[in-house]
Amino acid sequence: MPSETVTLSGHIIDNLTLPNVLDEVVNGGFKYRLIDLNLGVRHDDTSTARIEVTTGTEEEMTHLLDQLRAHGANPETVEDARLIEADMDGALPPGFYSSTNLETDVRIDGKWLRVTHPEMDCGIVVEEDRARTVAMGEITKGMKVVMSGLGIRALPIERTRGEDRGAFEFMSSDLSSEKPKGLLLDQVADQMRAVKAEGKRILWVVGPALVHTGTAPDISALIRAGYVDALFAGNGVAAHDVESNIYGTSLGVHLDRGTPAEHGHEHHIRAVNEVRRHGSFKAAIDAGVFKDGIVYHLIKHEREYLFGGSVRDDGPMPETVTDMMEVQRRLRDIIWGHDGTDLVGCCIVVGTMLHGIATGNCLPASVPLVCVDINQATVTKLMDRGSWQSIGIITDLSLFVRALVERLAPGELDRIG
Amino acid sequence: MPSETVTLSGHIIDNLTLPNVLDEVVNGGFKYRLIDLNLGVRHDDTSTARIEVTTGTEEEMTHLLDQLRAHGANPETVEDARLIEADMDGALPPGFYSSTNLETDVRIDGKWLRVTHPEMDCGIVVEEDRARTVAMGEITKGMKVVMSGLGIRALPIERTRGEDRGAFEFMSSDLSSEKPKGLLLDQVADQMRAVKAEGKRILWVVGPALVHTGTAPDISALIRAGYVDALFAGNGVAAHDVESNIYGTSLGVHLDRGTPAEHGHEHHIRAVNEVRRHGSFKAAIDAGVFKDGIVYHLIKHEREYLFGGSVRDDGPMPETVTDMMEVQRRLRDIIWGHDGTDLVGCCIVVGTMLHGIATGNCLPASVPLVCVDINQATVTKLMDRGSWQSIGIITDLSLFVRALVERLAPGELDRIG
Amino acid sequence: MPSETVTLSGHIIDNLTLPNVLDEVVNGGFKYRLIDLNLGVRHDDTSTARIEVTTGTEEEMTHLLDQLRAHGANPETVEDARLIEADMDGALPPGFYSSTNLETDVRIDGKWLRVTHPEMDCGIVVEEDRARTVAMGEITKGMKVVMSGLGIRALPIERTRGEDRGAFEFMSSDLSSEKPKGLLLDQVADQMRAVKAEGKRILWVVGPALVHTGTAPDISALIRAGYVDALFAGNGVAAHDVESNIYGTSLGVHLDRGTPAEHGHEHHIRAVNEVRRHGSFKAAIDAGVFKDGIVYHLIKHEREYLFGGSVRDDGPMPETVTDMMEVQRRLRDIIWGHDGTDLVGCCIVVGTMLHGIATGNCLPASVPLVCVDINQATVTKLMDRGSWQSIGIITDLSLFVRALVERLAPGELDRIG
Amino acid sequence: MPSETVTLSGHIIDNLTLPNVLDEVVNGGFKYRLIDLNLGVRHDDTSTARIEVTTGTEEEMTHLLDQLRAHGANPETVEDARLIEADMDGALPPGFYSSTNLETDVRIDGKWLRVTHPEMDCGIVVEEDRARTVAMGEITKGMKVVMSGLGIRALPIERTRGEDRGAFEFMSSDLSSEKPKGLLLDQVADQMRAVKAEGKRILWVVGPALVHTGTAPDISALIRAGYVDALFAGNGVAAHDVESNIYGTSLGVHLDRGTPAEHGHEHHIRAVNEVRRHGSFKAAIDAGVFKDGIVYHLIKHEREYLFGGSVRDDGPMPETVTDMMEVQRRLRDIIWGHDGTDLVGCCIVVGTMLHGIATGNCLPASVPLVCVDINQATVTKLMDRGSWQSIGIITDLSLFVRALVERLAPGELDRIG
Repeated sequence: MPSETVTLSGHIIDNLTLPNVLDEVVNGGFKYRLIDLNLGVRHDDTSTARIEVTTGTEEEMTHLLDQLRAHGANPETVEDARLIEADMDGALPPGFYSSTNLETDVRIDGKWLRVTHPEMDCGIVVEEDRARTVAMGEITKGMKVVMSGLGIRALPIERTRGEDRGAFEFMSSDLSSEKPKGLLLDQVADQMRAVKAEGKRILWVVGPALVHTGTAPDISALIRAGYVDALFAGNGVAAHDVESNIYGTSLGVHLDRGTPAEHGHEHHIRAVNEVRRHGSFKAAIDAGVFKDGIVYHLIKHEREYLFGGSVRDDGPMPETVTDMMEVQRRLRDIIWGHDGTDLVGCCIVVGTMLHGIATGNCLPASVPLVCVDINQATVTKLMDRGSWQSIGIITDLSLFVRALVERLAPGELDRIG
Repeated sequence: MPSETVTLSGHIIDNLTLPNVLDEVVNGGFKYRLIDLNLGVRHDDTSTARIEVTTGTEEEMTHLLDQLRAHGANPETVEDARLIEADMDGALPPGFYSSTNLETDVRIDGKWLRVTHPEMDCGIVVEEDRARTVAMGEITKGMKVVMSGLGIRALPIERTRGEDRGAFEFMSSDLSSEKPKGLLLDQVADQMRAVKAEGKRILWVVGPALVHTGTAPDISALIRAGYVDALFAGNGVAAHDVESNIYGTSLGVHLDRGTPAEHGHEHHIRAVNEVRRHGSFKAAIDAGVFKDGIVYHLIKHEREYLFGGSVRDDGPMPETVTDMMEVQRRLRDIIWGHDGTDLVGCCIVVGTMLHGIATGNCLPASVPLVCVDINQATVTKLMDRGSWQSIGIITDLSLFVRALVERLAPGELDRIG
Repeated sequence: MPSETVTLSGHIIDNLTLPNVLDEVVNGGFKYRLIDLNLGVRHDDTSTARIEVTTGTEEEMTHLLDQLRAHGANPETVEDARLIEADMDGALPPGFYSSTNLETDVRIDGKWLRVTHPEMDCGIVVEEDRARTVAMGEITKGMKVVMSGLGIRALPIERTRGEDRGAFEFMSSDLSSEKPKGLLLDQVADQMRAVKAEGKRILWVVGPALVHTGTAPDISALIRAGYVDALFAGNGVAAHDVESNIYGTSLGVHLDRGTPAEHGHEHHIRAVNEVRRHGSFKAAIDAGVFKDGIVYHLIKHEREYLFGGSVRDDGPMPETVTDMMEVQRRLRDIIWGHDGTDLVGCCIVVGTMLHGIATGNCLPASVPLVCVDINQATVTKLMDRGSWQSIGIITDLSLFVRALVERLAPGELDRIG
Repeated sequence: MPSETVTLSGHIIDNLTLPNVLDEVVNGGFKYRLIDLNLGVRHDDTSTARIEVTTGTEEEMTHLLDQLRAHGANPETVEDARLIEADMDGALPPGFYSSTNLETDVRIDGKWLRVTHPEMDCGIVVEEDRARTVAMGEITKGMKVVMSGLGIRALPIERTRGEDRGAFEFMSSDLSSEKPKGLLLDQVADQMRAVKAEGKRILWVVGPALVHTGTAPDISALIRAGYVDALFAGNGVAAHDVESNIYGTSLGVHLDRGTPAEHGHEHHIRAVNEVRRHGSFKAAIDAGVFKDGIVYHLIKHEREYLFGGSVRDDGPMPETVTDMMEVQRRLRDIIWGHDGTDLVGCCIVVGTMLHGIATGNCLPASVPLVCVDINQATVTKLMDRGSWQSIGIITDLSLFVRALVERLAPGELDRIG
């Protein structure tokens, strides 16, 4: 029966690395033997463990190593990663290594190469002395793909604790609407300031409730104040935003009075039609079609934006990308910057499960993610894929964004009323 | 087959009175004939209708008239109300008239008496030339109880519209978290200011999430600013509030750090025990046990309060009323003022279904009710018993109360941080 | 000031048509005068009304008529509809008439033409003696488009009541999880049987929770029993379904044990990759890749299916349509049948807001829609666009589908365990 | 600075005991030193650890030991527990030991006494050679109360794993409505059968939605089949149940048709009044007032029941206990059996947060708890106090109970339709 020895080090008890690794082995029906355990005597000490794992077949071992690697337990045996050429476009060879969102090295010709653009559920392709993730649909015949097995190591993010806890640490354990909200808001605002201080970008991923709740002026304020570097949303956000700036309504409700608009549902479709007639947001703005709002400010302040189509769209807006594979490509570009090295510093997901999960799927584990929704089930789903740095906040997105403006851009409050 | 003619007047089409009345008749399996319909030609005109309804039996007619009366359709036949003496304590005679929360008159000896303290689901008792509602459990043998049938008329609240709409009109149609929130907050703040300007009292009904979310300082600010005249809550609110002012925790979470407290769950039980040892909130405050918070401010500013016990309580706190019938009695006292004529001007329910429904059950229809919760199902249930003046808001209660402080007591913001 | 007289007939009080029409006029800030009101004296009688409405401008009148028309109040003035040629591809001329989902006639050369494929928020295009809805994105230059104004009439669906109520009538008033569930299930099952008895098709629109909850065998049973003629879903449903039939897991949980699978998240991506390697579901089934499940049964029993891509997809599956405009086109084909005349008889939406709303947008008002979700907010949103025949059920989709199998296909129960 | 050595043994890594203990120490701002760690080499081996903890003050040490004890880490130093006489009725002496719901021993005169009736948040009182929990409100002056500190040890329930996992293990990690539902139902049914096979009692704690959803016949079937030994609920359950068996309605909705009842809201209040007129459920049944339903079956089959009052009650029913302290006393009697030794075997909480939490507060950790609700937030709150054996299920309670009847009492299905 095949065995392999894996090693772990760090705060392996506090971080639950050791329990999780043992869990994986036992849950899989396999055996382990603790060969060596050097547990830190005090809280600051790091610990190390060596564990021999035994499976029934080589294939099980290959899979088990993949699992343990995701917890940062890497095999001792050092070999080059196995590469196989893709035999067709758009699909990986059987036995491919399915990537995690952790920093990862693959060993090629005796050297460990760092994989660029860590993203979960991709293949890893090696080209000369570079390794990178490639999504299944982007694979082309002949690419050299890393196979499951040895020669791969993952570097988990250390979960800090005690004094050293990261900004979002305290809430990650459980989700509830009954948390100290002012405190949470302070933490998110601090995180955003810190990201900007480091010269990194903030990516917002937002849903249409932002517009329905009258929160577009607040987002616009944050755009002006420099806290929105890029925005990813569905077509509906653009459509409702433009509608509200032409007609004062969102889905047929007057945003300044709360009353239903006469012929309100039409406004939505007419707003989309009007922008289509101009061919682009820029052309419509230049023609004076709308003069305020999220789209207006994104364009005026030259922020990056991506509107993805969905099956329920009217229109859609002329710049909405309707092919889902193309949306994913452009989203990766936004996340990594167009030269591929300007990774966003944090990501704020507000009021959207669909686009939030899409973004979470593409983000490396190192990027802090803030997920805000009034519905606990939505936040739970978004957090399922989160990393240690992520935080879910069950709250009213409208009051949440206003409270961010109060903290980050108080000078804008007079303007937005 | 018995028939009776009922009359309606007012904006009977706009207010849906006429459709609702016809609905009741048809749903009950009975027949109607529109005898007379004088529909206002223009929007401002009032309309009148006379409808003959026919049932199979006298008993059905009695019940149908009760139903139609709740919509403001009163029978033309004028007779005295039938009175029967209660034959036992604590229960009404069979056939009793079950009250609505509308203004109601009963006809005794040829004269219409206005029923004091309209409250739903009570009996109406006549004493000399006075009529008042009496809850089933408060009935004593010998009281003269109004029976279902003729001699009773209800006066529905006119639902205004167009320019004349009341503060909360616009939202009453449907509940959603996706409403213009700033606007809603402005309306609630305006309503509260108007109530105070009229010299009336504001009753708050609150749940423990107020304390867990760190919102007690905001409520305290509203107490100081004069916007909380009375507060009704469960024992848990008092217990968590005092806990947080002794230990800085609420249910074992540090409110100023968000981290779990060492031996935190104990704090709750120790806080309750300590106040019990002093015998009252006042005595505990005088002894310096706690120096801030909702309970502290209620007592210091001599606001009225009522903490009702529940089956899940620890302790409870010494002033918590553990008998539910006694809680209802005291709640009615708060609602109507201790001389019975100082009806509260509005009621704000925040984060509690149990106490909110209890209050809604006792309130007359004329008192505006604002129901705030993050859970749509909770707000829906609270609104089921609401009147035209009521509004349900699906939002985060912590950010909601903070936004009220910003509107009503901005001078307090520095103090509460 | 322009005035126009509109007429209504039917159960205009019971159905709230008259109050709604008056509401629209007053809410828009306009005036009305009731010229004629012939109210049915008894419940069975139909009523008619003639109302003169006056607006400030011709443009307001045009829009007001559009609004009233959606309630079935059509202008008396009979003129031909105004047609304008589309001046560009992919956008409608300004002033276009935005369609409702009601049966609609347009008057061309003195004759009323019935508009085929009623769908909301489309343009209406006239070609020779035919009129049809065309989505904005499908407009091509030169099409003759109906403008807002006269010459259009909508035919609302009569809301039946009393004895004659439709299957789903009783619940439409309010949404709550606290409804008699057995009764609701009986009604849905009766509706489905009736649709099949009429020779019509049943369209299912489903979300991935169907697979996660272990409900795929129940849907498969309904496919075999003939109660699923077409199925529309996202890529995730196909991916999870195939995963569960290759590996026994769904999103990494063993469906037969409930425990997390060893290397479970990989299963999902490997299942997608494997089907991609075969190029189609059929090819993968022929190769023995999977032998059971929703996809398997759809193909084996030659039911129609459409899997739409979304921005969060892995892969996607080879037959998933990734362009959203193409998904909408194919969805319309499914709804109307491929010759355009075989309209589906009812539509069951289970556990998906995105695809449910997409379908609701395309459906004519006459098709009964059943929306099932455990989340009240989801059902509320789906029902916002519903018609009288629609019903929202807040329940557990897994137990709901099983209960349908018990009612519709009890013979399958042994097989699915 | 005071130090103390605590010892742990068992599956201290797998069960997270060791990480949790270290967490508590570090979170409290204290230091630890791992003196001894004997980690099982293989999965079946038990492990032991000795940890020296150091705090700043004796008081901190006392509290820290309380915290660690709740995880099963007991101090090595063996001393008698410190006892102090209660100095007043209804409150504990400062410094009292606040109990957990674990099996607990206290050391008196050199002997370890097992504490009877483990319940959280109580005092422990020693009388001669017996120790028992006493709720704060039941303390009388002169009782000997155990103080925080040494001489107390808690015995945590071992969390089994792998092959040995308990019935409910698999789901305890996270709550979601998207779980294999049939499997969950099988597990709950198995657990109930096992409890009955051991001769133990099943306690149901239910909310009024059971009646509104038409599920009372299913509960009645389970009563007849012997799966309901005791039932705890609020007054509303009794009131709605009796209403539905007199009038066929629940809160004014006809349970057999789903339509609103003519004069439906009255039914509720009339049903309560009628039972009050008879003085007891039994007397009302004997008089033929109602002939079916939950209350009827509880009485006919001589099951135990407890209806607790709440502040929103109408009436209440004559047997409803309106004083909350008395409800808690009777609930403890039901849980432990009237001789105090017949502890219930499991507890099923369906559709009630208030009564579910009340019961969870009184139950020892060893009793498995099943919490069922359609609302995730409700289940989360109920589970917060749960033990390893507990399971939360987010589902439709009506379909859930029906599915239990199908599994446990299929012979009853014909009768309940």
